[in-house]
Amino acid sequence: MTDRITPERVRTVACIGAGVIGGGWVAYFLARGFRVRAWDPAADAEARLRTLVEAAWPALTELGLAPGASGDDLTVTRELAEAVAGADYVQESAPEQLDLKRRLLADIDAATPEHVVIGSSTSGYGMTEMAVDAVGGHRLVVAHPFNPPYLIPLVEVVGGKRTAADVVTWTADFLRHVGKSVIVMDREVPGFIANRLQEALWREALHMVANGEATPEQIDASITEGPGLRWAFHGPMLTFHLAGGPGGMAHMLDHFGPSLLSPWTRLEAPELTTELRDSVVAGTEEEAAGRTIADLVRERDRLLVDVLRVLGKVPDGA
Amino acid sequence: MTDRITPERVRTVACIGAGVIGGGWVAYFLARGFRVRAWDPAADAEARLRTLVEAAWPALTELGLAPGASGDDLTVTRELAEAVAGADYVQESAPEQLDLKRRLLADIDAATPEHVVIGSSTSGYGMTEMAVDAVGGHRLVVAHPFNPPYLIPLVEVVGGKRTAADVVTWTADFLRHVGKSVIVMDREVPGFIANRLQEALWREALHMVANGEATPEQIDASITEGPGLRWAFHGPMLTFHLAGGPGGMAHMLDHFGPSLLSPWTRLEAPELTTELRDSVVAGTEEEAAGRTIADLVRERDRLLVDVLRVLGKVPDGA
Repeated sequence: MTDRITPERVRTVACIGAGVIGGGWVAYFLARGFRVRAWDPAADAEARLRTLVEAAWPALTELGLAPGASGDDLTVTRELAEAVAGADYVQESAPEQLDLKRRLLADIDAATPEHVVIGSSTSGYGMTEMAVDAVGGHRLVVAHPFNPPYLIPLVEVVGGKRTAADVVTWTADFLRHVGKSVIVMDREVPGFIANRLQEALWREALHMVANGEATPEQIDASITEGPGLRWAFHGPMLTFHLAGGPGGMAHMLDHFGPSLLSPWTRLEAPELTTELRDSVVAGTEEEAAGRTIADLVRERDRLLVDVLRVLGKVPDGA
Repeated sequence: MTDRITPERVRTVACIGAGVIGGGWVAYFLARGFRVRAWDPAADAEARLRTLVEAAWPALTELGLAPGASGDDLTVTRELAEAVAGADYVQESAPEQLDLKRRLLADIDAATPEHVVIGSSTSGYGMTEMAVDAVGGHRLVVAHPFNPPYLIPLVEVVGGKRTAADVVTWTADFLRHVGKSVIVMDREVPGFIANRLQEALWREALHMVANGEATPEQIDASITEGPGLRWAFHGPMLTFHLAGGPGGMAHMLDHFGPSLLSPWTRLEAPELTTELRDSVVAGTEEEAAGRTIADLVRERDRLLVDVLRVLGKVPDGA
């Protein structure tokens, strides 16, 4: 244990790297009422960053700013030591190059007060491989957001081999405290969870374009007019829990399991062992948390109506 | 050409198979003001169907019923000939078994007046392989909806080798006329478009559960709190068009192309040839239809705020 401050007492956040993702974090932390110190080596970084914050502010205002939140609580510097001095939390969002991340995380670690946690926005590297050059590997942790970080709630938190357990817990607590939806993973997997799922879909989409099977526009419409509407509130597991009718996921896997053998994607399916079948059924039931299929159907229909209306997708009529 | 009636003059629709998908079609056509004749061999089919329509009716009412629409315009029969007699369009939604589909489509074809189009809700079979036993293969066409068909707009329409071109056009026109969002594919691909994309994601999810990398609940949260929110209005192509900053999809592919080699999913990526790169960039620009990256960012943020609010996902604050 260290003399780390409690998540509720964080007042100043350093954002290292101020591109699309780093700038999105800056906007989010400002809207949540923090003082933000941003660092970026690019000559035009400050201008681009202030433009990004300005563009994000109306949406953030509409969702509700924290008391006293102001876009003016932003300091931009090209001196790393100046950015991290006085920070209670550091979020690194440099370009996705392993060598660069290793060097930069070592530099940040060397310049940042010992008790401060340093999170990385990496899209897919594990902290074990990124922290090799840093002395303070125990306080380095992955905190992977989604674009735009100022509106998408998800942050995936996962430590490397050297990351202290209390750092993982502190980071999850802090990010939840500021309004994020946090998934804590207990092991490093390249791409974490959401990017692995997104990447599988993306690669299949690229195969379809490469083979002339679908255009980019058809691919997008197939998602936004179809399963994408459901994925805004029910993930793939609950979606398939409802696809089998009253029997739920168990019926779905027992009756549609053979479709895993269909050539419906270039991705080979895992063998549907009894163990896998039972894990999926039990996990889905746990997620449903007592909601029956009929409950979930009502929930789905209510939310679909709201989402369709918000998106202007109400049918014209016959 | 036949003496087919124009799509606007369709008054009666036959729905063959009344499970989750067939029943969803029944509810949709009733809400759009059609007379519906449903056929299903199960003893309890009528009771289950009327329960499904009743459960769907509040959502359909909220979205706006067609003038005169009534849940009472439904006839349920266990005689196939009775169901299709007088129908102006037939939608088949039998279980996803090829032999069963072949037999049933041949039977429907034999019983249905010559000028009537017959669509199939199949999740992934091509009409070429399903129509082998039917005499009238020219008027058989895939019209693949998403669950629930009464709320999800997407229908994928694609003909088989024997399907007449005017049948594909008629079906697309009819379904658009009743308020559906139609994608017409010009070639048969197993699983069509959206199910291929969904299946790639689903298989990667199953691999993660099988390997203990993520629980079903984490998988769902990673989508509903993350990329699923964007997929309700921007598909994977427009999403990545915005991921590269002002340079759009071209910048994205030129700079993040190497991540296709990362082990972020079990699905092997296609080679990112110049041709594929150019097809994706051109297709995405065409879809953007003059909207700049800044326009799309504003659109995304506005819709994300609306969707987040509808889903109750507004951050609590610091």
